[in-house]
Amino acid sequence: MKPPVISFSTLQSVVEISATLAFALSGLLAGARKQLDVVGLCVVAGLSAFGGGTLRDVLLDRRPFFWVEHADWLWALMGLAFGAMLFLRHRHLALTERAIEWPDALGLGLFTANGSWIALQAGMPAIVAVLMGVITATFGGVLRDIVCNEIPAAFHDHRPYALCSFVGGWVVVAAVQLQAPQWAAISAAAAITVMLRALALWTGWTLPPWRFHKR
Amino acid sequence: MKPPVISFSTLQSVVEISATLAFALSGLLAGARKQLDVVGLCVVAGLSAFGGGTLRDVLLDRRPFFWVEHADWLWALMGLAFGAMLFLRHRHLALTERAIEWPDALGLGLFTANGSWIALQAGMPAIVAVLMGVITATFGGVLRDIVCNEIPAAFHDHRPYALCSFVGGWVVVAAVQLQAPQWAAISAAAAITVMLRALALWTGWTLPPWRFHKR
Amino acid sequence: MKPPVISFSTLQSVVEISATLAFALSGLLAGARKQLDVVGLCVVAGLSAFGGGTLRDVLLDRRPFFWVEHADWLWALMGLAFGAMLFLRHRHLALTERAIEWPDALGLGLFTANGSWIALQAGMPAIVAVLMGVITATFGGVLRDIVCNEIPAAFHDHRPYALCSFVGGWVVVAAVQLQAPQWAAISAAAAITVMLRALALWTGWTLPPWRFHKR
Repeated sequence: MKPPVISFSTLQSVVEISATLAFALSGLLAGARKQLDVVGLCVVAGLSAFGGGTLRDVLLDRRPFFWVEHADWLWALMGLAFGAMLFLRHRHLALTERAIEWPDALGLGLFTANGSWIALQAGMPAIVAVLMGVITATFGGVLRDIVCNEIPAAFHDHRPYALCSFVGGWVVVAAVQLQAPQWAAISAAAAITVMLRALALWTGWTLPPWRFHKR
Repeated sequence: MKPPVISFSTLQSVVEISATLAFALSGLLAGARKQLDVVGLCVVAGLSAFGGGTLRDVLLDRRPFFWVEHADWLWALMGLAFGAMLFLRHRHLALTERAIEWPDALGLGLFTANGSWIALQAGMPAIVAVLMGVITATFGGVLRDIVCNEIPAAFHDHRPYALCSFVGGWVVVAAVQLQAPQWAAISAAAAITVMLRALALWTGWTLPPWRFHKR
Repeated sequence: MKPPVISFSTLQSVVEISATLAFALSGLLAGARKQLDVVGLCVVAGLSAFGGGTLRDVLLDRRPFFWVEHADWLWALMGLAFGAMLFLRHRHLALTERAIEWPDALGLGLFTANGSWIALQAGMPAIVAVLMGVITATFGGVLRDIVCNEIPAAFHDHRPYALCSFVGGWVVVAAVQLQAPQWAAISAAAAITVMLRALALWTGWTLPPWRFHKR
């Protein structure tokens, strides 16, 4: 039964590509808001797209990185950054931000599921595997915000983002415990993460705030 | 003579636990001051507690990390962050900051001694081993401050902190040169680092400032 | 024909030393502007000088780092930081900044050429090797600016810096394709990078800005 595995991998690749693009675009927007030059745009787009997975791989001591194995992606990123310099106008920023919310949610789900799966395969304990999923899915954005000299939105905006990813990671762990095959574990975890994130976006649900305020 | 070694390790674990807690609390306080959400609190607490050791292990190419081997700690950290969200009030901030100065000094000593020892075992030259001790003890706080979008206090507040750790690292190097056993090297280095830091806190000693001022 | 190889290595070492000093000085200046203490100065000088190469080596999983193999350099850095605390006055800042522009350009060229060469030897694809050259040459400065709580100048000042390095990386790739010997590949790439950077400094050429402005 090898074919289904291969076709799942292919499907996964396709979804990963759109999710990676959404992550890269979030970097481009952040860079544009900060008026970075074309070099800065390439870097924040690259960090947003590949930073989380790269950090996970450094922590797990895995090589090669995604962007080394699929180096063509780096060209696509640079093309994106040049295109953004040419065509992005101020009025596009808020629009694009809204437009990428959904592929970004897709990325959150996929990167979480994939990251947790990879960490479990590497023999990590459950809680560490879940964290590796969260890191894969969210630390690209964290690095983007650090380079842009902002407190990372994922830590600060009191909206559920990493939390959806955290739940999704446990779905992978549960599925592996139940000896589900890879495609089922990853699909279930990704679907649940995306649904949670979609729910959070629709309802505008926020995490509880602090009861004191900044002076 | 195995028992003493084991009991030293146990003692070391106990002290490391309180020191790690103090480091995590320093992260929680920094996060509370910046009004991070619960996700951000977990991350800054985790970075403060484990960031220095993790960076050392990445540089030395050592695995597994402390928080992978002792994954239960991650639960404790998350519990701390939730507790902080529920119970921490504004008036607690300055109080807690004062209260953790001493366990924090303990952590400075222990992490320094431990980090330098590990680096020497990994065959590093003396000065590099000392730096690894400093990194272990101080870079958790540095990463915490970077995530909170501040210039790291350890580089900026002109109070001796990393400097105490630097001296402590040389104590480890000297003890190893004199072929002292592990427990003696680590205890002596930790004790001297803690005493120096305590002295600095008591006397309010500051590093020499720049003779010019910002425009 | 071993002697020429050795003498090239020696020449390379000499140039690397002056370039590393220029990079360290750029860190000292940034730290002085932010009124860091002597610990902070040592760290930003060290990050500026060795941060790029260290990040490259972590990504390529290479050990030992330059500053582990040549640990004496760490003493030199600390000496520099102490000297800066003693002798650097406000009126020196802009002067030194001008004075290090040229050795800095030299460093840009050498670190690019060296980084790309090392990455190619490690079997990286061309575009990745070029990026590793750029990372080697520019990420020291990026880490310096992040620690100083600024948006990295290399991403923000719209002046060609990383871009010169990017072109230089391709010169290494082309030279290796043409089976040029190491010294020729590195010299050509470094020379072209330095010339491009010099041209950019002379002409004051800037990258195209965004057509919209911050509100």
